[in-house]
Amino acid sequence: MPSSSAHAQCSEVPGWVGDGSAAAGAVTMADEAAELGEALRRQADTVRRLKQEKASPEEVAEQVAKLLELKAQLGTDDGKHKFVLKTPKGTRDYNPKQMAIREKVFDIIISTFKRHGAEVIDTPVFELKETLTGKYGEDSKLIYDLKDQGGELLSLRYDLTVPFARYLAMNKITNIKRYHIAKVYRRDNPAMTRGRYREFYQCDFDIAGQFDPMIPDAECLKIVHEILSGLQIGDFLIKVNDRRILDGMFAVCGVPDSKFRMICSTVDKLDKATWEDVKSEMVGEKGLSPEAADRIGEYVQLHGGLGLIEQLLQDPKLSQNKLAREGLGDMKLLFEYLTLFGIADKIAFDLSLARGLDYYTGVIYEAILLQPQNAHKEEPVSVGSVAGGGRYDGLVGMFDPKGRKVPCVGVSIGIERIFSIMEQKVEASEEKIRTTETQVLVAAAQKKLLEERLKLISELWDSGIKAEMLYKKNPKLLNQLQYCEDTGIPLVAIVGEQELKDGVVKLRVVATREEVDVRRENLTEEIKRRTCQP
Amino acid sequence: MPSSSAHAQCSEVPGWVGDGSAAAGAVTMADEAAELGEALRRQADTVRRLKQEKASPEEVAEQVAKLLELKAQLGTDDGKHKFVLKTPKGTRDYNPKQMAIREKVFDIIISTFKRHGAEVIDTPVFELKETLTGKYGEDSKLIYDLKDQGGELLSLRYDLTVPFARYLAMNKITNIKRYHIAKVYRRDNPAMTRGRYREFYQCDFDIAGQFDPMIPDAECLKIVHEILSGLQIGDFLIKVNDRRILDGMFAVCGVPDSKFRMICSTVDKLDKATWEDVKSEMVGEKGLSPEAADRIGEYVQLHGGLGLIEQLLQDPKLSQNKLAREGLGDMKLLFEYLTLFGIADKIAFDLSLARGLDYYTGVIYEAILLQPQNAHKEEPVSVGSVAGGGRYDGLVGMFDPKGRKVPCVGVSIGIERIFSIMEQKVEASEEKIRTTETQVLVAAAQKKLLEERLKLISELWDSGIKAEMLYKKNPKLLNQLQYCEDTGIPLVAIVGEQELKDGVVKLRVVATREEVDVRRENLTEEIKRRTCQP
Repeated sequence: MPSSSAHAQCSEVPGWVGDGSAAAGAVTMADEAAELGEALRRQADTVRRLKQEKASPEEVAEQVAKLLELKAQLGTDDGKHKFVLKTPKGTRDYNPKQMAIREKVFDIIISTFKRHGAEVIDTPVFELKETLTGKYGEDSKLIYDLKDQGGELLSLRYDLTVPFARYLAMNKITNIKRYHIAKVYRRDNPAMTRGRYREFYQCDFDIAGQFDPMIPDAECLKIVHEILSGLQIGDFLIKVNDRRILDGMFAVCGVPDSKFRMICSTVDKLDKATWEDVKSEMVGEKGLSPEAADRIGEYVQLHGGLGLIEQLLQDPKLSQNKLAREGLGDMKLLFEYLTLFGIADKIAFDLSLARGLDYYTGVIYEAILLQPQNAHKEEPVSVGSVAGGGRYDGLVGMFDPKGRKVPCVGVSIGIERIFSIMEQKVEASEEKIRTTETQVLVAAAQKKLLEERLKLISELWDSGIKAEMLYKKNPKLLNQLQYCEDTGIPLVAIVGEQELKDGVVKLRVVATREEVDVRRENLTEEIKRRTCQP
Repeated sequence: MPSSSAHAQCSEVPGWVGDGSAAAGAVTMADEAAELGEALRRQADTVRRLKQEKASPEEVAEQVAKLLELKAQLGTDDGKHKFVLKTPKGTRDYNPKQMAIREKVFDIIISTFKRHGAEVIDTPVFELKETLTGKYGEDSKLIYDLKDQGGELLSLRYDLTVPFARYLAMNKITNIKRYHIAKVYRRDNPAMTRGRYREFYQCDFDIAGQFDPMIPDAECLKIVHEILSGLQIGDFLIKVNDRRILDGMFAVCGVPDSKFRMICSTVDKLDKATWEDVKSEMVGEKGLSPEAADRIGEYVQLHGGLGLIEQLLQDPKLSQNKLAREGLGDMKLLFEYLTLFGIADKIAFDLSLARGLDYYTGVIYEAILLQPQNAHKEEPVSVGSVAGGGRYDGLVGMFDPKGRKVPCVGVSIGIERIFSIMEQKVEASEEKIRTTETQVLVAAAQKKLLEERLKLISELWDSGIKAEMLYKKNPKLLNQLQYCEDTGIPLVAIVGEQELKDGVVKLRVVATREEVDVRRENLTEEIKRRTCQP
């Protein structure tokens, strides 16, 4: 999940929800077809009546001509209404090759979550509309609503964090470490080549509970580090900041309290826009004084590590602010823990990181992939955010009838961009990806052996062997071998008249063309041995 | 997937979409609040104006009183509108225990699909509305539509079969064996205790392509047999029939062509209703002659195996019908293949099986669980359908611009009912289910060892060990051990002052309380050895 503010930005492009005309066209077409159908029916009745009434042949001929004309018209019209064969805008199918890559990525992510002792939950794809209301700020306009068909008003989930908070409050859970991998939905401007979709996966890991400061927070960053290292998709950097430091900074820069969230959203655009553009939005659109904006400008260009934290703790203005002091103190602690985890070199404390969503209350972070440094050793360039998250201590309280809070911190891995990169990598390497795990093809050497093939494959399935056969009564041996070449099946179990008599099966290794007779009772073991299955 | 006709039946119960009143209530409430707000605003203006006009203190006081009254009213009203903390009707969350069971069920199903050489695909949760139009007959009213928010008109998928056919036509695929496991959506009357939801999983396996008769069809039944055996949820029976036999039977019984599908839907209700009820629907609602109904009645009570097929091939009326002859011939072939697979004893040719969906063209089947026979050896009683499917040779052609057909046959496993049964079984057995895979808890024997715990756990994570620690600076050893007891973590790695000096970690086996000092460099291997991980 790309930063939510980036989503919000794009949705401001005018006219992008512009495919309404197609739907209107379909309705018009349907109406026209219905009208024509009715005319046709009436004309047919006329012809029938005339015939019954034994009208003159000329009269009948005239009306039949009219009927044929109408029929022709219907034909033309029918041709005009082309059915559009596509998936909805911003969505896609996954073919078996893409699924193989997707499952590889999921395996790495899930095994990391499990290595950290996470449980797993699932929630429905839609929530009551009011569950989502008031949680996403200006991004709320991107929520998909369901049609009111009688009953409850529903919306598709926008992320997995709000459903998680609803789940905790509903079940009065005060303590859990869980992951959740599922699709979320945003009516955003899709940019599918860059991995941005309207339906996309989020892989979330969250720790809920009252704990000592920054220990769970540090673990979330360790998890991001493990996953991005494990995926081997190049160098990366994890930016961290804290909402309390931002709020303290806004206060000392002279931003009125009421404008904190608004200015925060504007700061969040710094990863895509220049400071000049951001400043002009602050002053022009958000009504901030140019002096206050300039003071913010000085802070948000700062990034570094422990040194910067120490420097800001001494900052004459910032150190006077209680929130900022708290945030900086915790940031220092976080860096100590990250150093113990051996990952501090990939983490940058960055005062320009703001994150779009309203619900963050403490530390926030975002991981970006860095393009490889070129020969001139220029600064590595960001190719976009692949993970993000932070602390949200107030969200569960919004759902609890008595407002009881459950502190939470979590991270969300943005799988689609990672998946795009992996897919490109696979294509570039021309690596052949198998989309099945079939160990053996059951083949026949001669005709009329369908029954024998069915008996053998059934035996193999029943002993746990992954086996296929061609669905032909009498397939040619060459076609059967070719199928193995095409799909990467390593072994062929060939039945023939002679083999049946001898109580053996000919086992052929596709790669080497080596053939060996194996006694039928040993076949399962031999296949397992040769395909390295326990 | 529960038979679709059962869904249709329930939706006819009047008033079941009966939570409209709640939504209406909310709208009323919102209207009232808006009205009140407007009144309040007007009253505030009045007070302001009076003050500006320097009206008499009495006059101002009177109007202020009115304002306060309105404000109080708003307060009361606000309190009335309670936020409902729930998941949408007919849906549920899965907690970690339920997820553990669900993953066990999926593992069995997926490994069966893979054993048969299936690839996997995925499609979006919603489709263009017109993709689903005209595919489900009278069940179409159960489709969830998305709100028209500008752009394409969308609906949530109703099953995985129609999206599969759309996928094949869109990508011009004429040959594939794939599985797809995903949630589908039906605005049906939920019966959640019996595993019937509005959001539920389907696990579909389909074979598309032009092949020799009944070979893929037989494999689908073999798969159902393997899955239901593997799940160990008791005895089961797979009923089979063929749409061509049904249509032939309708023809020879004197049902007009135009009523075939309608009468077919009525026959499908025989698993829940008596013949008398079904007959009265045929005659009363569907306008069939009582004689035709009686002739149908004679056929639909027949069930058996190869013997019945032979008998019907000799049936003086049925054998005259081309469609019926084709269907019966293929049914005979199917039973031959099922016998070779060794599963014919669990299959019953049943002329009352009809299946609700429009798109079937050939063999159809449905698996039901049988309750264990009681001591009196009565007939086993059906506890409901857990799998179903059949051949649909025309569906892909409905999407192809040139109407090119791709023959398909498939099966859908209804996971929710199976899941309910598994859940009950687990609860009854009081078996303790672990919801994490954590191998070791990193614990401290004394205070002030947080840093040492962080260093050790980081080492373990980096060498692939699943490890947890408590997020406290100074947790008590007893609490750390208790956490292992509660969550089933088998090992504790304890760091203490002495152990640090000696370069060892104390490894404690939770079950036996045995403790052993392990040299730090050997710890990973020792944990792997003791938790049987490769």
